[in-house]
Formats: sequence, structure tokens, C-alpha cells
Amino acid sequence: MKVGIFGSGMVGQTIGSRVAVLGHAVMMGTRNPAKLQEWLGKVAGKARVGSLADAAAHGEILFNATNGNGSLEALALAGEANLNGKILVDISNPLDFSHGMPPVLFVSNSDSLGEQIQRAYPKVKLIKTLNTVTASLMVNPRQLADGDHHIFVSGNDVDAKLYVVDLLKTWFGWKNILDLGDITTARGTEMYLPIWLRMWGALGTGLFNIKIVK
Amino acid sequence: MKVGIFGSGMVGQTIGSRVAVLGHAVMMGTRNPAKLQEWLGKVAGKARVGSLADAAAHGEILFNATNGNGSLEALALAGEANLNGKILVDISNPLDFSHGMPPVLFVSNSDSLGEQIQRAYPKVKLIKTLNTVTASLMVNPRQLADGDHHIFVSGNDVDAKLYVVDLLKTWFGWKNILDLGDITTARGTEMYLPIWLRMWGALGTGLFNIKIVK
Repeated sequence: MKVGIFGSGMVGQTIGSRVAVLGHAVMMGTRNPAKLQEWLGKVAGKARVGSLADAAAHGEILFNATNGNGSLEALALAGEANLNGKILVDISNPLDFSHGMPPVLFVSNSDSLGEQIQRAYPKVKLIKTLNTVTASLMVNPRQLADGDHHIFVSGNDVDAKLYVVDLLKTWFGWKNILDLGDITTARGTEMYLPIWLRMWGALGTGLFNIKIVK
Repeated sequence: MKVGIFGSGMVGQTIGSRVAVLGHAVMMGTRNPAKLQEWLGKVAGKARVGSLADAAAHGEILFNATNGNGSLEALALAGEANLNGKILVDISNPLDFSHGMPPVLFVSNSDSLGEQIQRAYPKVKLIKTLNTVTASLMVNPRQLADGDHHIFVSGNDVDAKLYVVDLLKTWFGWKNILDLGDITTARGTEMYLPIWLRMWGALGTGLFNIKIVK
């Protein structure tokens, strides 16, 4: 499958590496191709780097792995025509580090970044997921407790959500996936970030996740 | 021990019943004593009901189980002189239902209700905990997975926090307690409420909790 990934940071690189290893045609979309030169060497020619618009046009399915505060700008550069009708897996978080640590959320409560993106691109099938764990867990959940912990999905398009749930299982190995509901439930997973950051601090590692016990 | 509990709702009643059964001298503080008449019958005379000031004066340790939007007003009625120097276990959440469901938080991000209360009463040893689970789990965590899931504590006074951790274990049966840090970490547990409410919706029950897997 042709996969477009927006973002050149740790999350984009981690998703890109995993998807490329699976044999899919990955194109990373970025404003800073130089940031991906070392990574390109690691994936040994199994992926390409282009502009955000290149990656959007290339991908049959798209991942938003940009920093939250740059996501809407990046998607504008990707181009609405290149996005429309496609599934966009949104991993971004609305973290604002401009006031120091810990970051605050620049949108929360009665709105979310997921909703902002969905409103800006109503013809995109936006599925919010993976934004509640550190990058290496996103693509390899079984490194912890053989994968017996949870990831969440939010989105309006039920078929697209089922497709992404299947992808989380088959591409990355997720076992426990909870569908929270429509895209407004992204408020929940985004507002989880503050406790996630505090748990990281208390545990001394970002390599953890939560399991729902009921 | 003499225990004062503020609030006449489900959380206050549940905490009050458990603490009374343990043999402690419980006084519930409320503006609406009538709301506790039926409950008083259930605990068979093992607890008393008074004003917020009565309960605050009575308690050697205090629990804030009022609705978040009424907590500061309730504590004002309890009276600073009756609160000062004591441990106040704060279970409240800053939920605002005035805009419909799901509720939003009336304070979040760079502040929290826990911090507001601590600032208003700097001589109170405020420990935020138990606000991330449904009432019946607060006092009986072992009804789920023999208690193998987590509760959080936040607070500035380290000795008071250790005391409350011990109380969570011995009074209620908590096994896994994570100290997130000072009272600013209450932002994390309060901002967890939106995802908690969405999990409740997706799971069809409030009788669940999260276990940290690492």
C-alpha cells in the first residue's frame, strides 16, 4: 500500500520505519528533508522523502505525525485536494511548550485538535489514535506485557475506524483497542496528555501504557 | 479516629459508610442534612450529620467529597480555622455540566481545583486522590482484578501524602498507588476526567479503572 506520513520527528520516523519494513511504499512528507537523511540510511532505501504535498498525493492512507502546533499549517501545505477522501490517522497532540514545562494544551475541553482538523477538512476520514503512548510503543505494543494494554480510537467514519483498528492490529500488533466514539472523543485522549506526562515523570520512563481493568 | 466528610452525595456517602464501618467517628458535613436521613439509617447510628463547620471542627482528618463547582463555597462554610493544620483528602473534580453533556472542566491546563483549594487554604495539607474512579471503587478497589490497578496521589506535604497513602491501603485496600508529585499534578488527574467519562460510555459501566503497565 502507498503510505504518506507527515512529519520528520521521532513519531514520523518510528511509524515510517515500521510501515516500510512491512513492505509498504512509504513517502515521508516534510518541510525539512535534511532532517530525514540519517533516517533514510537506516531504512536502506525502503522509503522516500518528499514535500508534504508529495506525501499527501502519494499516500492511499495518511498519518499526521507532525507537532500539534504545526499540524494545521502542515496539512494546508499538503493540500486539501491531496487529502480529500482519504483516511488520515492523526497522532498529533495540542501541546504548547511556550510557557515552559509541563506543557499546556492549546485547545481542550469543548474542542480538540482532532476536531479542528476534521472541521478544516470535512472530506478527510480522520481517525485519532496512538497519541496516548510513546513512539516506540505505537508500533510495538507487545514489548510491554505481551501487548496487554490499551489504545484508543476516535473518529466519525465508522468504516474508516474499523479499517484503522485492523491496521493497528496487523501492522503494529495492538491487541486491546477501545473505540471511544466520534471525533469529539479526541478531547479525552488529548486531555490525557497531562497525566501521561506526570506518570512519565513519576515512573522515570515513557515506556509505559495503561490497561483498562473491568 | 475522628473523620469529617464534606458532601452528602454518592461519594460522601460511600466514603462515610466505609470509614464508619471501620469504627471511626464519622461526621458528615452538609448544607442539606435531609439528604442524609436515609443514609443515616443504613449506617445504623455509626455516624453523625452536622453542618460543614461542625464536620470540619470534628475531624482530625477531612475529606472533600462535594461537587467541584461547590467545593470552595463549602470549604468557606467549613471555616478556615477548622481546616488549618489538617489533612484534607480532596476527591472533587472541576466538572461543569451547565453546557450539557459531556461536562467540561471549569479549571484546567495551567491550574486545577486542587491548586485553587490549596491556594485558598495554604495551611491545609491538601492531598488530591480518588478522583479518578467511581465511588464504589474508591473504598473497595479489590472488587476488580483483586485490586491490581492504580490510584494517584498529588500533594505538597510529603508526610501528609505518606499518611494518606497508608490510609488508602489500610482503610480501603488499595495496592497500587502512584505519587505523581506536588499539587500541580492534580491538573493531570482532573484532566483525566474527560477520557474517563468517554471510557465509561464505551465500556457501558463506570466500574473500571486503569492499571499502569511498564
